[in-house]
Amino acid sequence: MRIGVIGAGNVGGTLGRSWVQKGHDVMFGVPNPTAPKMLELLKATGGKARAGGIAEAAAHGEVVAFATPWAATQDAVRQAGDLAGKVILDCTNPLKEDLSGLAVGHTTSGAERVAAWASGGRVVKVFNTTGFENMAQPSYGGTPITMFFAGDDAQAKRVAAQLAQEMGFDPVDAGPLANARLLEPLALLWIYLAVKQGHGTGIAYKLVHR
Amino acid sequence: MRIGVIGAGNVGGTLGRSWVQKGHDVMFGVPNPTAPKMLELLKATGGKARAGGIAEAAAHGEVVAFATPWAATQDAVRQAGDLAGKVILDCTNPLKEDLSGLAVGHTTSGAERVAAWASGGRVVKVFNTTGFENMAQPSYGGTPITMFFAGDDAQAKRVAAQLAQEMGFDPVDAGPLANARLLEPLALLWIYLAVKQGHGTGIAYKLVHR
Repeated sequence: MRIGVIGAGNVGGTLGRSWVQKGHDVMFGVPNPTAPKMLELLKATGGKARAGGIAEAAAHGEVVAFATPWAATQDAVRQAGDLAGKVILDCTNPLKEDLSGLAVGHTTSGAERVAAWASGGRVVKVFNTTGFENMAQPSYGGTPITMFFAGDDAQAKRVAAQLAQEMGFDPVDAGPLANARLLEPLALLWIYLAVKQGHGTGIAYKLVHR
Repeated sequence: MRIGVIGAGNVGGTLGRSWVQKGHDVMFGVPNPTAPKMLELLKATGGKARAGGIAEAAAHGEVVAFATPWAATQDAVRQAGDLAGKVILDCTNPLKEDLSGLAVGHTTSGAERVAAWASGGRVVKVFNTTGFENMAQPSYGGTPITMFFAGDDAQAKRVAAQLAQEMGFDPVDAGPLANARLLEPLALLWIYLAVKQGHGTGIAYKLVHR
């Protein structure tokens, strides 16, 4: 395939290198195609990829992958020009610059509501990211599946982790209660995969370590 | 521990049974503690758990787990009474009743913005839920890690899946583009775990099947 990769940082560079290895015709699109880092990346592809401006790389691709920082994405899409009919891979994330949250769309969570209602209670978000069948049997092929938990009270979090571990889960601390904004979507994704995509309820998330 | 489990459906019932097995003192809190299904559940715990009203079960617990449908949660928390100082496990999910989305907080996604900007482009959200190190080496212990993708155009999604598979990922169809609302939080969770929780970048999500 002819692929335009917009952005040549860690993500764009890695994707482009990998796609070159698989035999695809890759052009990186960046503001300055002759910058030293860009030339170094092209060398790392064995000279098999090219670099051009954003519009040029987008025109090259039947597939165009955007791997830009969020703040640069709207402008990159504009510069890319006519994208009608092309396959666009959106590899970006709308992160706030301090990584404290998502810049769009994610403004609160059920857990934060519960905490507001449960005045004085030390709320932990937990046991929400998998089905009850997995809660009854949290072991897959002899290894524990993951249970994420999030909260603002260290002792309450230890209780949640202990209960999850006793049940057979691998408990993973996912940070403060506001990170329920990340765990509740994970629950909906599980439901979607189980119910709408036909995987059934015998699926689970496992955080694996290298 | 003394645990109050508010709600005795699939999730509450499974959690309560499991906690009884681990030796905890469980009381279920439900509107009708003598309903046939409740009595059946108590029998399944070997008579080791009790049932009471919501306020009674909440008062019983040093830990109180809410496993209620979202629409019933605010009222259940209110009925639970004074929760000050207690450990509250929020096992709920603020799902819309038709499971089409989250009822609070999650209103759009970066991908939907990109699709609006990339007029006519067939956008797929992909390669956003893991670090570039994993994109270079998507195999953990000889098995592929998961790459979720979401989009509205079937052919564009096949392209994304093929590229991910060629790289060595296990591609998993996560539904329509609006489900980027679920995948972007997953990205932020990865970043949080890698950077803030000290797991480092050698972690990845794997969707496991029973």
